[in-house]
Amino acid sequence: AIELDAQLHHSDKGTYRHYMLKEIYEQPQAIQRTLEDRIQANHRIQPHAFGTQAPDIFEKIKHIQIIACGTSYHAGYVARYWFESIAGISCNVEVASEYRYRQSVLPENTLFVTISQSGETADTLAALREAKKKGIFASLCICNVPTSTLVRESDLAFITHAGPEIGVASTKAFTTQLVALMLLVVSVAKVRGLELAREQQIVQQLQSLPVILDSVLAMDKAIERIAEEFGEKHHTLFLGRGAHYPVAMEGALKLKEISYIHAEAYPAGELKHGPLALVDHDMPVVAVAPNNDLIDKLKSNLQEVRARAGELYVFADSKVHITPEIGLKVFAMPSVSDDIAPIVYTVPLQLLSYHVAVIRGTDVDQPRNLAKSVTVE
Amino acid sequence: AIELDAQLHHSDKGTYRHYMLKEIYEQPQAIQRTLEDRIQANHRIQPHAFGTQAPDIFEKIKHIQIIACGTSYHAGYVARYWFESIAGISCNVEVASEYRYRQSVLPENTLFVTISQSGETADTLAALREAKKKGIFASLCICNVPTSTLVRESDLAFITHAGPEIGVASTKAFTTQLVALMLLVVSVAKVRGLELAREQQIVQQLQSLPVILDSVLAMDKAIERIAEEFGEKHHTLFLGRGAHYPVAMEGALKLKEISYIHAEAYPAGELKHGPLALVDHDMPVVAVAPNNDLIDKLKSNLQEVRARAGELYVFADSKVHITPEIGLKVFAMPSVSDDIAPIVYTVPLQLLSYHVAVIRGTDVDQPRNLAKSVTVE
Repeated sequence: AIELDAQLHHSDKGTYRHYMLKEIYEQPQAIQRTLEDRIQANHRIQPHAFGTQAPDIFEKIKHIQIIACGTSYHAGYVARYWFESIAGISCNVEVASEYRYRQSVLPENTLFVTISQSGETADTLAALREAKKKGIFASLCICNVPTSTLVRESDLAFITHAGPEIGVASTKAFTTQLVALMLLVVSVAKVRGLELAREQQIVQQLQSLPVILDSVLAMDKAIERIAEEFGEKHHTLFLGRGAHYPVAMEGALKLKEISYIHAEAYPAGELKHGPLALVDHDMPVVAVAPNNDLIDKLKSNLQEVRARAGELYVFADSKVHITPEIGLKVFAMPSVSDDIAPIVYTVPLQLLSYHVAVIRGTDVDQPRNLAKSVTVE
Repeated sequence: AIELDAQLHHSDKGTYRHYMLKEIYEQPQAIQRTLEDRIQANHRIQPHAFGTQAPDIFEKIKHIQIIACGTSYHAGYVARYWFESIAGISCNVEVASEYRYRQSVLPENTLFVTISQSGETADTLAALREAKKKGIFASLCICNVPTSTLVRESDLAFITHAGPEIGVASTKAFTTQLVALMLLVVSVAKVRGLELAREQQIVQQLQSLPVILDSVLAMDKAIERIAEEFGEKHHTLFLGRGAHYPVAMEGALKLKEISYIHAEAYPAGELKHGPLALVDHDMPVVAVAPNNDLIDKLKSNLQEVRARAGELYVFADSKVHITPEIGLKVFAMPSVSDDIAPIVYTVPLQLLSYHVAVIRGTDVDQPRNLAKSVTVE
């Protein structure tokens, strides 16, 4: 049931040891390409960035249903927080293999959003077809392949310009999906009354991402050094709150996929309801700590971990004062706004999983048991 | 931030070695007590089982939002499948610590359902208060303590009659919550046109649970024997599909809480999107395989695990033909309807985690780092 990717021979790793590392480093340009032609000179989104029919459709929608698998599901999960807080529209996200087989109820005038790098993900395609059979208002896909089935079968399509992604573990496809989703959130928010200044603010933040990500990529060596400490570990816990919970989920998935370490993400507030029992010296805990309203809550969650001898690795906004101590390593992240923080905090977790996998000697670009695109059920 | 439970001295374990085991065995009676007075002689639900105002409120609601933490969250997650498939009403479920701090959008005429054994769970209470501040149509809680704050602050309340639960890892509170939720689903479905015969069918199934669970409890010795094989394991994967995905989540949480094994649940269809990379001889996989539409899909997921040398433990409906082989152990479960299967399949997973914890010599009733009720944030 697993289809191996034949593209492996058609691309070039250049000076990079693995495609995955190359693709991590390509993210600034991939995001820039994805923004190009979609942004006007005045920092506004092109009205037809999602197609000529898009503005009419966006005027009528009352709910967003996002469907995806794996990494794309995590992108959708981040966007759920954005849709509700920025656009004020209710939003659900669900994995395609669950959605397609259950009797579900969609509110009226739902925009059915699918996300898939390849546009050929079997479960996602089947979920779209199933939803169309039941009757949906309109469908939109976010996809990296313009000629894909998903693009052909959707009313609206947005193509990310990540370029070919060869490594099985998705990196630049994910961050460009997040950029596409933020453009969608703002486009929907605009017809619901988002102020011009707020639109321009978010667009400028997106435009600043290439430079910001370059500064995050400069943390590579520091992350490589710390990766040694994960070489012999069996487990890792990833913590985040709010839109950074799915960022933590994506960090855990990356580590699972390529280093075969059993990593799991939790929304930090749920720690006390069970997973805290797992925490001891053998369970490293990775946390993302952007500078937002939840930072004090997160700090208190981190203290719970420290009190139980858990080894902490915290990627923290440089304006957040978390003092390194024994068992608590802090990586200073550039200070960015909450809007784009999930995109920025994804990158150090990609680097961490990459270096851990290299240390463990796994086949980074083609991890065991996995295919690049799951085109069969 | 952890408050220890003082009740431990006020109850009696009887002939049981631990409160948790006693409470697992009390489930048939706990469910019977929870049904008593709520069911009429003609297998119909009392119209006022959720309070005298309930029928009026149920007539007007258009959406269900469930909020809970930990085990109660898993009960809500099961109910989400039931609400959409049986009552045809859209339903969301979210952990309280996430919901309370994000800017969320609630559809009009939402019934805001909270679930908490103690009725004092800090995050759940805070989420209810936050939602009320924003304005909700009506609130309903499912709770085991009639005098609790949550009951006092909700418009409608349903008290589960599980009796005092002393073990930190929730068992009978969970299954009685599921019974309460099914009564709620059917009560809501009735005002939306559920046929009398279907109501009676579901109620009779609920009434048959005590006898069915007795037969599941008779599997105790077989499960105890198999538990030995988990004694030295570091990980376990739990698989389920549909409403049995949250059952798998609850099975994983139990194993985490009391045996400190890093257990994680996945909806089986997501395996190929990442976690399959983890599967090898050292990663036992526990699956629940009720006899429903998804069984063939699940079987194919199990083959993927076997092909990668994963050791499988399958709790399967006796009418489902899964042949035991080397590396694949099958436990025959009573053949039950899909409606109540999530309640039935919960019990063997409780027994499994209990026996694994005893073998590992942990403090079963008071696992490290955890409190019975998380009454502070």
